[in-house]
This record gives sequence, structure tokens and C-alpha cells, in this order.
Amino acid sequence: MTYDPNNPFAKILRGDAPCVKVCETGDVMAFMDLMPQSDGHVLVVPKEPAATLFDLSDAGAEASIRVVRRVALAVRAALAPDGVFVGQFNGRAAGQTVEHVHFHVIPRWADQPLRMHARVVADAAELEALAERIRAHLRD
Amino acid sequence: MTYDPNNPFAKILRGDAPCVKVCETGDVMAFMDLMPQSDGHVLVVPKEPAATLFDLSDAGAEASIRVVRRVALAVRAALAPDGVFVGQFNGRAAGQTVEHVHFHVIPRWADQPLRMHARVVADAAELEALAERIRAHLRD
Repeated sequence: MTYDPNNPFAKILRGDAPCVKVCETGDVMAFMDLMPQSDGHVLVVPKEPAATLFDLSDAGAEASIRVVRRVALAVRAALAPDGVFVGQFNGRAAGQTVEHVHFHVIPRWADQPLRMHARVVADAAELEALAERIRAHLRD
Repeated sequence: MTYDPNNPFAKILRGDAPCVKVCETGDVMAFMDLMPQSDGHVLVVPKEPAATLFDLSDAGAEASIRVVRRVALAVRAALAPDGVFVGQFNGRAAGQTVEHVHFHVIPRWADQPLRMHARVVADAAELEALAERIRAHLRD
């Protein structure tokens, strides 16, 4: 998969498109999924221009998983889900819809099936409110 | 989730139960899932005694994602799937069935839905044959 520098996440990473940011390090940005599969669905995106995990450096993968873990802990603290799913999809057949490598952090509740991936855009105010609850636990 | 040192993966890690091993480092072991969701489904398991990603150290998470990436590349080279799904489940509500943190590396083919998780035990010779094809690409 060749890397397209105009993919939606590349635009967010360089500030050319908006996002509801959760946290940022030198190597990684985390923001709310606009079409969440559950409330509190966060995307963790390395800044390295790589389309898939195959193309990402070890350093980029390590920086990503550290942020994934911190975000998962904050999501758990903020929203008290019954579980947290981490997913990383490579290729359309595996569910990848944006061709910049990313990790999904998706809270799960035992009585709620996941919503379909990339279908319905969430209310912006609701996303911001969820992000603020998660950010509060990243500041701890 | 408290850590049970007699969980099935703990037994494999200390050599008290068999597995079809794909590769091993000082910190991580990778072996074939006995109840694969697709042909070539590999589990990447840090040796650290942690039940979930929440409990795992940064070093354990980093060592795991490095092996996940190498195994994903080897699975792709060996089996030429249309995509590769990486999944890491925390809590039963998120699909976790063994209470030792692990990453699933699951090849996907566009025309094949995933088989159900943890239902049917695969034929041992078929698992070994798949593992050998994947190992060949880890030796490259």
C-alpha cells in the first residue's frame, strides 16, 4: 500500500483538518474517532508517514503502543467499560479504511454490540465531552 | 483482573504445556492459536505475568509490538492474505478468553469471514505446516 500524504489522518497530523484531540507526544497523536463504534472510541496515530504496520518503524510501533496503553487506561478510568478492545487493521480486507497506520482503542460494554465501523458521524459536542473525560485521566 | 499463574498461556510460557511455536525472544513468545479464526492465526504473548494490557509494563508492550510486526510481516510473506488484523482484547466483554495479555495476528482474505473465536480446535499437522511456512519468513 503506497502512502498518500493527503489521506485524512495526514491532514489532521499536519493541522490541515480538525480533530477532537485526546493527547499528543512528539511521535504520536490520539483523537476521537468521528464515526465511533462505541462511546469513547479513540484512534492512536503515529506521526510517521506509514500506510500500515508493515511500513512502520519499530520506534514508531513502540511509541504507538505506549500511547495506546495510556489511552486505554484513561478510557477505562473515565468511562468504566466492561472491557477495552485494541484493534489495528492492515488492508481493506482487515477493515482498514484510512491508509495511515492507526490503532483503535474501543471501550466495550457487555450488553452493547459494537456499532458498524465508519458509518455514522457522531455529534461534535458529545465527542468533545467524552474526550474531556478521557483527557482528565491522562493528566493524572 | 488478578493474574492466575496457572492460566493456559502461563503453562505454555514455562514449558508445562505444548504449543506450536512460531518464534521466541527473551521477552515474548509467538505460537499458533489452537482455535484459529483463520489459517495462520498467531498469538504473540509477552512473558511478563500480566493479565491485560492495563497491567503490562511499557517495556513488555514495546517488546510485544515489535514481535507482532515481525510476525505480521512473516504471515503476509508466507500466506499472501489480502490483509492482516491485529487484535488485543482486555476483559471478557472485549473478547478476552485467556487471562494473560496477548495479541492476535490474524490474516484476512476478502472472500472469507472470520471463524468464531475459541470454538474449534485445528488439526495439529495443519497448524505445524502453517507455522513452518511462517517461520521460514522469520528466518529471512
